[in-house]
Amino acid sequence: MGIIVQKYGGSSVADVEKLKRISEIIAAIKNTGKDVVAVVSAMGKTTNSLIEMAKQISPNPSRREMDMLLSTGERTTMALLCIALNELGVEAISLTGSQAGIITNDRHNNARVIEVRPVRVQDELEKGKVVVIGGFQGVSYKRDITTLGRGGSDTSAVALAAALNAERCEIYSDVDGVYTTDPNIVEDAKHLPEISYQQIQEMAEAGAKVLNAQAVQFAKEAKIALYARSTFKPGKETLIKDISKKELTGVLAVVYEKEIIRIYVHDSDKIEWVLNYLEENQIPIKEFQQSGLAGDAGFKCSFIVSTTNVYDWEKVKETFEDKLREGIYINESLGALSIIGEGFSRNNNVLLETFKLLQKNNINFYGVNTTSFRISILVERDLLEEAVKVCHGYWIG
Amino acid sequence: MGIIVQKYGGSSVADVEKLKRISEIIAAIKNTGKDVVAVVSAMGKTTNSLIEMAKQISPNPSRREMDMLLSTGERTTMALLCIALNELGVEAISLTGSQAGIITNDRHNNARVIEVRPVRVQDELEKGKVVVIGGFQGVSYKRDITTLGRGGSDTSAVALAAALNAERCEIYSDVDGVYTTDPNIVEDAKHLPEISYQQIQEMAEAGAKVLNAQAVQFAKEAKIALYARSTFKPGKETLIKDISKKELTGVLAVVYEKEIIRIYVHDSDKIEWVLNYLEENQIPIKEFQQSGLAGDAGFKCSFIVSTTNVYDWEKVKETFEDKLREGIYINESLGALSIIGEGFSRNNNVLLETFKLLQKNNINFYGVNTTSFRISILVERDLLEEAVKVCHGYWIG
Repeated sequence: MGIIVQKYGGSSVADVEKLKRISEIIAAIKNTGKDVVAVVSAMGKTTNSLIEMAKQISPNPSRREMDMLLSTGERTTMALLCIALNELGVEAISLTGSQAGIITNDRHNNARVIEVRPVRVQDELEKGKVVVIGGFQGVSYKRDITTLGRGGSDTSAVALAAALNAERCEIYSDVDGVYTTDPNIVEDAKHLPEISYQQIQEMAEAGAKVLNAQAVQFAKEAKIALYARSTFKPGKETLIKDISKKELTGVLAVVYEKEIIRIYVHDSDKIEWVLNYLEENQIPIKEFQQSGLAGDAGFKCSFIVSTTNVYDWEKVKETFEDKLREGIYINESLGALSIIGEGFSRNNNVLLETFKLLQKNNINFYGVNTTSFRISILVERDLLEEAVKVCHGYWIG
Repeated sequence: MGIIVQKYGGSSVADVEKLKRISEIIAAIKNTGKDVVAVVSAMGKTTNSLIEMAKQISPNPSRREMDMLLSTGERTTMALLCIALNELGVEAISLTGSQAGIITNDRHNNARVIEVRPVRVQDELEKGKVVVIGGFQGVSYKRDITTLGRGGSDTSAVALAAALNAERCEIYSDVDGVYTTDPNIVEDAKHLPEISYQQIQEMAEAGAKVLNAQAVQFAKEAKIALYARSTFKPGKETLIKDISKKELTGVLAVVYEKEIIRIYVHDSDKIEWVLNYLEENQIPIKEFQQSGLAGDAGFKCSFIVSTTNVYDWEKVKETFEDKLREGIYINESLGALSIIGEGFSRNNNVLLETFKLLQKNNINFYGVNTTSFRISILVERDLLEEAVKVCHGYWIG
């Protein structure tokens, strides 16, 4: 019998009424004879209000304790959803990330799933129960509760789907799939009925609020078909799957990331400290550029980092500025525009035409990074939305 | 080095400001060279609002899921308290009931602690850390999260104090110890600087909102000195300890319980069903009376049960009335007045004088139950507070 893994995001479980509606959706699927595993996020703004309380106490809380704190959100949802399912006569049991066998490394706040041992999930499914699992959380080999970073519930769902050899994994949210750009910025963004694993990973890594990149990686490796759907507006969906090369062509989407920072370091002796500090604060480096040799007067380097997952950027920035008063410069006025597609390294046309387009619209660019699947361009943050509109209009229309 | 176990109740940790103040209190004790284990309750009304959400979904939720749901409250508190301690430069780590080794039976919602294996608590204390533990919760041998019923955080604290061979266990709340009666009813209730384990257990079992009875049992067995104190108004306290018989004399306190129900069953065939149903709903039977033989026409029996821990008494009552339409009668208009003291079985004076006193004040009684340490009298619930005042005035003054 096929197993279906579903993930319901925070807006889908925002209140008791929505939980009841979801319990009806799950009951209907269960009644078709499928086994259902539902992975849930925290209700609505719960995570934010927990973070807010922690911030009132400390600008720099222990990562382990933040994980202990935040993991309660998903646990509340999963218990309430089981109660709602029982009320409909559907047998259900909630399992924590730990009980579901989601083992992670001990990088608190942004842990990576290293293994999934879903023994108890399988036992409960065999008893005919719907299994509801708290997303976003796992347990480290030290037996501490960990969380998986932004979009971590997607990772929980896909990792479980892979370990359970599920028929498919459905990711429910308040949007009905993936679009060619952010519909909040470009009204006629086009819905994508299908997209490849690689492409959606590129979109996620370039800042699009689509699926979590690690989640897609799990799906790709286990060849699990992923469906991105709207919870309460069924109809359209995006299927994420392997797509053979010849079907792929040109520009697929235009995405952006606002929360990036460029850090210039003009003293090569300070590079090591910067790298350690970034690692310590779990700030991923997206790009690194260097000119001149270390020790030379002409030495210059810069890092592009994403501050999306940084707990308190202002605090981190202060430390940077304290430690590196000499030869340090932080630029917070940039944003990254990314064109997602295929074959960009075989053909410079897209890059050249985009340059011309931006110039024509008086949008300067401050750096470019290109792979076969993505062209990323740094522009002024204030002009980022304008750049997205212009590029989407030109390449996708 | 001595270990001090402290328990902070819900009103002591009601908000972020109070958590900060408690972190300062703990830091001060830690600085005197003591090892500190702090057991915390859920913040303020958290537990009630979680129960409220569950009630919006189901009148009769799964006990296991309720435990999963409610245990999140203490986890939020403990993580935030550790963050506050860290902010003061005190190393601290939070542990769940499960991580702290609190093993219970699987009677969800009202589990009993069957063993405490505080290996990890000891490890963390040896590293010099303050250990903050979520009260009210444990883990069953089936590896499910359980909760310990009303006052369960007291039980967590005392069970840990016993297992850690702590120097003492301090129970902090919004009252500065134990009084001769409820100060909300009798203004000149007297503070008790000392009380025996046995006496406080009798008070708890007779409905007084003092320490949890199982908690006191643990303290008694392990000979742990228990201190009941006010968190934010230091000064007075009550020490609960072994008190040798000769110090004990006469009437010590007058307590009461409002949430009791008398169930009459006049058909002996229905007794078994009633007993099973009470067990199923984990409703403790406080008293059972029978007259006539089973099967005889003159057969009558009645149960006195406490509804304090019953999730939804109205629902339970409906089932009773549905199943037992014939020969069933539920009396919800009674309350129990209890006189707590010593030597009542050797001397009927207290009982007789109390009878006279109630008669003189036109308070009828509907049943009496006596032990050496307690005289409990059923009176009309509407007259219960009056009865408490009258008895306290007469016996204690």
